[in-house]
Amino acid sequence: MKLDLKLTRDILVNFIKLETEKIGLESIVIGLSGGIDSAVSAALASLAMDNKKVYAYGLPYKTSSIESIEDAKMVADSLGINFEVIDITSFVDKYCELDSGISRLRKGNIMARMRMTVIFDKSSLKNALVLGTSNKTELLLGYGTWYGDMASSINPIGDLYKTQLWELAGFLGIPEKIIKKEPTADLWVGQTDEQELGYSYTEIDKLLFAMVDERRDEKELLGMGFTEDIIKKIANRIKKTQFKRQLPIIAKISLRTIDKDFRYCRDWGY
Amino acid sequence: MKLDLKLTRDILVNFIKLETEKIGLESIVIGLSGGIDSAVSAALASLAMDNKKVYAYGLPYKTSSIESIEDAKMVADSLGINFEVIDITSFVDKYCELDSGISRLRKGNIMARMRMTVIFDKSSLKNALVLGTSNKTELLLGYGTWYGDMASSINPIGDLYKTQLWELAGFLGIPEKIIKKEPTADLWVGQTDEQELGYSYTEIDKLLFAMVDERRDEKELLGMGFTEDIIKKIANRIKKTQFKRQLPIIAKISLRTIDKDFRYCRDWGY
Repeated sequence: MKLDLKLTRDILVNFIKLETEKIGLESIVIGLSGGIDSAVSAALASLAMDNKKVYAYGLPYKTSSIESIEDAKMVADSLGINFEVIDITSFVDKYCELDSGISRLRKGNIMARMRMTVIFDKSSLKNALVLGTSNKTELLLGYGTWYGDMASSINPIGDLYKTQLWELAGFLGIPEKIIKKEPTADLWVGQTDEQELGYSYTEIDKLLFAMVDERRDEKELLGMGFTEDIIKKIANRIKKTQFKRQLPIIAKISLRTIDKDFRYCRDWGY
Repeated sequence: MKLDLKLTRDILVNFIKLETEKIGLESIVIGLSGGIDSAVSAALASLAMDNKKVYAYGLPYKTSSIESIEDAKMVADSLGINFEVIDITSFVDKYCELDSGISRLRKGNIMARMRMTVIFDKSSLKNALVLGTSNKTELLLGYGTWYGDMASSINPIGDLYKTQLWELAGFLGIPEKIIKKEPTADLWVGQTDEQELGYSYTEIDKLLFAMVDERRDEKELLGMGFTEDIIKKIANRIKKTQFKRQLPIIAKISLRTIDKDFRYCRDWGY
């Protein structure tokens, strides 16, 4: 799991640069939460292109912690990128008011999707790509909102585990306060990732790396000291959330179906 | 392009049934626009499961034609499925008010994404899958909103061209009025698909079928009577909108990257 930090940074900076230039764009939009994931994505973007072409947005809801938005601003200022705050409360609440019995989970998903709507709208305004901020741990656990925070144009950090991001963030000079704070989706007061997931990121990432990257079977994992409980729980989460890492499933009728037989344009001569 | 209508219907009904049962669900939610695409998807759902478990939503904006919502209700009534109207104006406008210079294209995308937000919220409430309503013509042309109307859990009609849907709709007994009406996204007053696309669906579908399904090259297409103009325009649209038919691109760092090397759960022994 140990990263060559310099090489990783260079690969990811180039990735952002090339993916943006490839389609003739030169700007990036990104949602900044005040957490480490979006801070790392934004830092990589600021290295990949002119800082003036990186547009970061803080998107607080009325229950969001004030510290989160202050931290987001601190990150943007330290990187020298554009920063604007758009409070999502008014439009989130206009919808939520229609159902007084709405659960906090449903409300959290609505907030994530409305934030996605804002960020993609800004990408249209700025003629920019939307930079993703979901890490590999979250993506594998399906710990995010499908078509919400999991949606982006390109994602520089989707192949890095949370614990690897802590290392990379230090190397990139992200403020210590951002790296050290307790990870939270901040969808309701008091929410923390590790409490919701039931295990620490350090434990989870070790297991995910052994399971997914090293393809170890259950016997080996038990031999490495992982409990049956954590193995079952994490494996189940991955299986149950597979749909979030896929496109909508299209029923096959023709000889060449989108996402099945029609996947690439590169073989086209037109 | 000629479909075996009975076989197509049976495949698609089974597809909905199996994909829903596979994950232990028994309900479907769907947005009904009053157009033919969502009418066909809803009709297939009503054949796949208990009508009482199919929840259709009309999601008008203040500029939407009144006829559209009346037609949506007529479709739901004719199928005997649940129908509810949720006006999206209040929350769409709360966001749009923040930028007085917003273009109608941006506003159209916001409407599509807010509708997606509502439909996915209802899927959570009803413990249901979201049924897609994008056809193959739209998907290939990228004529839809990414993470908006193009988002769903499963899509029974994504491998059928618009002109094939006209046939299938007749076979399924969709009211004649719905089949015959001028196709429109109804995002602003007077919008029609064929005007925006520059060609009729009949012309476009013939070309798409020859290009995509039959893999004919430009010379063959010209020999078939297609003009250089339509070939270039349609091929360009497909190439330029390829990103909308893909997941966010993740930068590869590890040996097993999501959507590259880690694509299926089925080989897992845990």
